[in-house]
Amino acid sequence: MQQHEGTGKMNTGGQGLIGITMGCPVGIGPEIILQFFAELKAQCPYTPVVIGDMGQLERCARELQIGVDIVPWLPDAPLEAGKLPVYEPAAGDGYLSDSPLWRWGEPNRETGRAALAYITAAVRLIKQGTLDGMVTGPIAKHAIQSAGCSFPGHTEMLASLCGVKNYGMMMAGKRLKVSLVTIHTPFAQVPVQLTRVEILRVINLTGETLSRDFGVSRARIAVAGLNPHSGESGLFGEEETKVIEPAVREAATSRWQVSGPHPPDTVFMKALANRYDAVVAMYHDQGLIPFKLIHFEDGVNVTMGLPMVRTSVDHGTAYDIAGRGVASASSLAAAFFMASDIIDNRKTNS
Amino acid sequence: MQQHEGTGKMNTGGQGLIGITMGCPVGIGPEIILQFFAELKAQCPYTPVVIGDMGQLERCARELQIGVDIVPWLPDAPLEAGKLPVYEPAAGDGYLSDSPLWRWGEPNRETGRAALAYITAAVRLIKQGTLDGMVTGPIAKHAIQSAGCSFPGHTEMLASLCGVKNYGMMMAGKRLKVSLVTIHTPFAQVPVQLTRVEILRVINLTGETLSRDFGVSRARIAVAGLNPHSGESGLFGEEETKVIEPAVREAATSRWQVSGPHPPDTVFMKALANRYDAVVAMYHDQGLIPFKLIHFEDGVNVTMGLPMVRTSVDHGTAYDIAGRGVASASSLAAAFFMASDIIDNRKTNS
Repeated sequence: MQQHEGTGKMNTGGQGLIGITMGCPVGIGPEIILQFFAELKAQCPYTPVVIGDMGQLERCARELQIGVDIVPWLPDAPLEAGKLPVYEPAAGDGYLSDSPLWRWGEPNRETGRAALAYITAAVRLIKQGTLDGMVTGPIAKHAIQSAGCSFPGHTEMLASLCGVKNYGMMMAGKRLKVSLVTIHTPFAQVPVQLTRVEILRVINLTGETLSRDFGVSRARIAVAGLNPHSGESGLFGEEETKVIEPAVREAATSRWQVSGPHPPDTVFMKALANRYDAVVAMYHDQGLIPFKLIHFEDGVNVTMGLPMVRTSVDHGTAYDIAGRGVASASSLAAAFFMASDIIDNRKTNS
Repeated sequence: MQQHEGTGKMNTGGQGLIGITMGCPVGIGPEIILQFFAELKAQCPYTPVVIGDMGQLERCARELQIGVDIVPWLPDAPLEAGKLPVYEPAAGDGYLSDSPLWRWGEPNRETGRAALAYITAAVRLIKQGTLDGMVTGPIAKHAIQSAGCSFPGHTEMLASLCGVKNYGMMMAGKRLKVSLVTIHTPFAQVPVQLTRVEILRVINLTGETLSRDFGVSRARIAVAGLNPHSGESGLFGEEETKVIEPAVREAATSRWQVSGPHPPDTVFMKALANRYDAVVAMYHDQGLIPFKLIHFEDGVNVTMGLPMVRTSVDHGTAYDIAGRGVASASSLAAAFFMASDIIDNRKTNS
């Protein structure tokens, strides 16, 4: 289908479409997309377009008896009401599907190449104005790496495709929003990687994301401490006084209302009670433990700092249950509706 | 009143009484005790006896207009129905009250000495069989240290008074129970302090506590990892493979059903879904962040490994609101009822 590429209008306004990349084609991506569309298509404020593989989606629908009409789609082609449009990436994206050989739960080099091609194609369709934003289905790091990809995940790959260096990760839900200063950092390395500059950078990204994507002006941002009781004035650790407090002081001159460092074991509860719009967490589990307790079913991963709108499901490929029809589409649905809201907010705020 | 000391029977069975130490006398201890008694006295399966200061309790009841009859009480004296019995420690406990000089929220050396005397007296009353167990009100570390106490808190002091070295801390609620391998350890020191031997020790204490105190046989104990995603096979840290897995393997031969290391960001959710009876957390905030989200109002601190039953409120002295009548007695109530249950369970299981 590459003969159609590049013919889309360079319309940066978008056409009311959100791309959903299928993720690893032998994970739970295909089935949650079909379930989401079957159940919620009538409620979607933007039209979902799958960037994926027709054959794999059709097989999935047939095997799991999900009643969704799947139709091939190209930019500028009309949409058929109630049918799921699928854009297949092409050889130019490094993609030649051998999907008849794929087996659920068994990723290989080719499924890795396919997952990468969906992402590359979605970014291109956004850049050329065909899509308003994207929602990414789950991929497995080892599968994309076996296909020659050196990025640890979506976020870094998308930042590179967009030429962005100042980006970050926020976990977002209606009740709790948490951004992370360090992400996949070994525990022992966290104190080493925490710097005033990095904390300040993530505070500012968080404020900008709350303002631009969630329509929160003068955002109330709580910065968590690192140590028990936030160190109790140095008694249980000095990162608060040496690194976090200076970052918070510097951020006080920003457009946001920044406070902290707060004792980690109560700050999330206060955010839930609507005393803060977001919490800046110092490390992965400090943010993810409370976030998943509150938003396990409907948590969304939002990439901060990208010029394009991207949200993601909050779970992995779940190979152990792929193709069985037991996976929940709730995180995908939450990611899709949140992407819709963010697109609307960016239009309003721009 | 020291002339009555030591005359109590050496009855190890207890007499249906639970002591509540008043904690720091100028914190919120007095008011939450009075509120608890005013509201819940009729529902208490054991009779509460305050180990504290008559004058301070009377002043608190008068100032906050809490309708509780406060009566002095000594071991073996009859109880008056509906009245709150108060045992005042004596000079032998290092106690001579100068409570008329105390002001809410302003701890000093004398309030520190008083708080220590309540604890010492309660332990003595348990040892002599007068009380079945104790619930401790909140103390402030700096106040007891200004009175010459070198212990960082209740737990270490009680362990010393009982001559126990193998003890630990569990945060317990109806929905979630979490025990801690490291407690008030600076973040950067956690990886250094985590050893196979320590983790195994806390696993076993957790199993014994679940069995003896909560009546759970063949307890299902989930051991959390330390690193993001439990290290992903060493990709994000090696403590799981080097320290935690060996401890879990060794614990597999115990009487409990021990599993792990589990990814920290989902293990608490699984415990909430009743897949585990308790989670062994590697550090303070790993356990306290989820615990306080679930049990902020009714969380109880249980000391594992003591020969006596001791539970504690899950909060501090709250000097900023002491004497104003706005503090919640819910954690004290939860601690009292949990102590009652533990006493019953120990009787059943002994």
